[in-house]
Amino acid sequence: MTDARNRTADGELRRRAAAVIPGGMYGHQSANPLPAQYPQFMAGGKGARVWDADGNSYVDLMCSYGPVVLGHQHPRVEEAARAQAALADCQNGPAPAMVELAELFVATVRHADWAMFAKNGTDATTMCCTIARAATGRNRILVAHGAYHGALPWCTPRPAGVTEADRVNLGHYTFNDLASARAAVEEAGSDLAAIVVSPFKHDAGIDQELVDPAFARGLRELCDATGAALILDDVRCGFRMALGSSWEPIGVDPDLSAWSKAIANGYPLAAVLGSEAFRAGASEIYVTGSFWFAAVPMAAGIATINALREEGGIEAMERAGTALRDGIVAQAASWGLEINYTGPVQMPYLTFAGDEDYTLGRLFAARALERGAYLHPRHNWFVSAAMTDDDVAAALAAADEAFAAVRKHLG
Amino acid sequence: MTDARNRTADGELRRRAAAVIPGGMYGHQSANPLPAQYPQFMAGGKGARVWDADGNSYVDLMCSYGPVVLGHQHPRVEEAARAQAALADCQNGPAPAMVELAELFVATVRHADWAMFAKNGTDATTMCCTIARAATGRNRILVAHGAYHGALPWCTPRPAGVTEADRVNLGHYTFNDLASARAAVEEAGSDLAAIVVSPFKHDAGIDQELVDPAFARGLRELCDATGAALILDDVRCGFRMALGSSWEPIGVDPDLSAWSKAIANGYPLAAVLGSEAFRAGASEIYVTGSFWFAAVPMAAGIATINALREEGGIEAMERAGTALRDGIVAQAASWGLEINYTGPVQMPYLTFAGDEDYTLGRLFAARALERGAYLHPRHNWFVSAAMTDDDVAAALAAADEAFAAVRKHLG
Repeated sequence: MTDARNRTADGELRRRAAAVIPGGMYGHQSANPLPAQYPQFMAGGKGARVWDADGNSYVDLMCSYGPVVLGHQHPRVEEAARAQAALADCQNGPAPAMVELAELFVATVRHADWAMFAKNGTDATTMCCTIARAATGRNRILVAHGAYHGALPWCTPRPAGVTEADRVNLGHYTFNDLASARAAVEEAGSDLAAIVVSPFKHDAGIDQELVDPAFARGLRELCDATGAALILDDVRCGFRMALGSSWEPIGVDPDLSAWSKAIANGYPLAAVLGSEAFRAGASEIYVTGSFWFAAVPMAAGIATINALREEGGIEAMERAGTALRDGIVAQAASWGLEINYTGPVQMPYLTFAGDEDYTLGRLFAARALERGAYLHPRHNWFVSAAMTDDDVAAALAAADEAFAAVRKHLG
Repeated sequence: MTDARNRTADGELRRRAAAVIPGGMYGHQSANPLPAQYPQFMAGGKGARVWDADGNSYVDLMCSYGPVVLGHQHPRVEEAARAQAALADCQNGPAPAMVELAELFVATVRHADWAMFAKNGTDATTMCCTIARAATGRNRILVAHGAYHGALPWCTPRPAGVTEADRVNLGHYTFNDLASARAAVEEAGSDLAAIVVSPFKHDAGIDQELVDPAFARGLRELCDATGAALILDDVRCGFRMALGSSWEPIGVDPDLSAWSKAIANGYPLAAVLGSEAFRAGASEIYVTGSFWFAAVPMAAGIATINALREEGGIEAMERAGTALRDGIVAQAASWGLEINYTGPVQMPYLTFAGDEDYTLGRLFAARALERGAYLHPRHNWFVSAAMTDDDVAAALAAADEAFAAVRKHLG
């Protein structure tokens, strides 16, 4: 591999985009905040490999920021999508696949008695809040400081265009700090509708933190004591750590959970799952979208869940993620570099000790990219079930050269 | 055609859905409020014909509630989508198709200098409001009484789970009543961020009302005078009445416009288009979604716009819609029934005079459905460019039997 990759097509596309897209690009896929080496435009992918608009190829450690869980162009998912597309996608009513998918979710996710579908992760987190408010007749929603639950005015991390009223019913606690949650619950008093929580702390740009099971159980008890809904935001993690919800392994069931990203291996789909107690609230609210009942993503979702189970997808991600972690941790030590490699191995994040302005993280990411591994300096990475031993080896070869560059930079 | 259509599969699917989907179904595609004859589950479609889960077929006068504008399974759109899908859909960054689509929108829609893409019509209307607030630094948004702009808490027509704060920054005017808009603007004072307006009045369940061009010009002047954004909600109408925005024919340009439904012939896509003056505001806000950068719907959008232009799609819808209107109006007269057939011929709506509880409308719709025309008793209909003379004739044959049933009911 060469580190002078061709960027001709990407540069030309960026120039054209600057004319017709505000800021040249927006949202989480804008390459503007990334090191200059990153391509903005992507052309294709297969398994755990992707290539950009100039044909440069990479081992994919971002998986489209989560959606691709079985690997790009997974044959079984693509075949299910094609078969459904040959019949119909967006119709005057849902296809039979919607019922099958709802049944499959209910059978797969322990706390789920019912399912609703939408398009965005933010649709799902927002629906959970609306259902909790409808069911309880209360207004107040607690979220963790710094947690990302979507990009509508009530939750977007950047305040431009957001009004005070959009957030007047939010309260805050600190992740893994049960005393702070208790205080926020007390402050909300009789107006507490729900506590929203992520399966683990995966806030952008900082070391990740696994959930303390006692904290999770404590939130469950606070909700039981107050009648508020416990909402698990499984949008980013869902189907990477477990099939039965990301808190199934620690044995804590939410009342409502929000899903999207990986549930249809890249096809546009979101889901809200809920318990019997919140079914009436869910049937009271009015939510909808022009494409929420479309059949192709639902067929892809069925195939994704079945493939994850039958092909041992979670285990495959754990295996590849563990090999990647062990290799990277050993490499860092061999270069005498102090790193933090945090989060579940399927969704790791790497920072360098004391690297507060991300100088080392950006240098590492840029050099890894040049050497053929697509990872991210400010966002957790994602491992897919398609990662082979060769893919892990290629990612580690790139990481080793990236560590060398950091070592050289530090002198 | 028989009026004792098979409902075996639909009934069984409904029974299963009732167990795993709150209320059995939700949103605009729930068949619960429709006459019992309507199927809940659909299986396929081609051109202007659709069939349900039991294989009963219909002339499609709903077009998936708008998205299908060129007809189901339009060859050019399907081919473009398949070609893009063979490369990639949801990746680590957008595909080159995103730039091409943004350029095509800017070239096609007169007021547009830039484009952003999302998944839901509600994403687009909400983004317009957020951009207007970011650009103006103000909070207040005016909407017409009874207008539908989506299904988030700030705009959903059903209040369950909605808090007071969600709507505290809304003001209201009456569509086509400029004095009421002036009064609302005055009440908002220096806090006016935007006026949201639909191309014509298409509120559910009531006769439609075309826009008075003087009203549209008056809103434009109010926004010019106050520095507020004029936001055209073209989600439902976009690409059915004109390619250059639904207000292009009357010569009034909004600052921002929201699009979805028909822009990719059923593939999931929404768009915000805006003028140069609001580009900076658009680049300040943070909005995103896991599937917003996916390539397949963008490739489908490019093919849809090109096909609409090159195949004369707007004219084809006008032609078929005019034949349908002329036939239905003549039929009603011949049966001695007084009807209101309102709105553009591409998006008509039929009510019976004095039918306040929809008894006649539901009877008409139920019988038309049994005779093979899928239309709606409480929502405007949609004509696609795929409607042939045979399709119009089949729809009219069904309508004539439906009028006969209404006549018989009235005695």
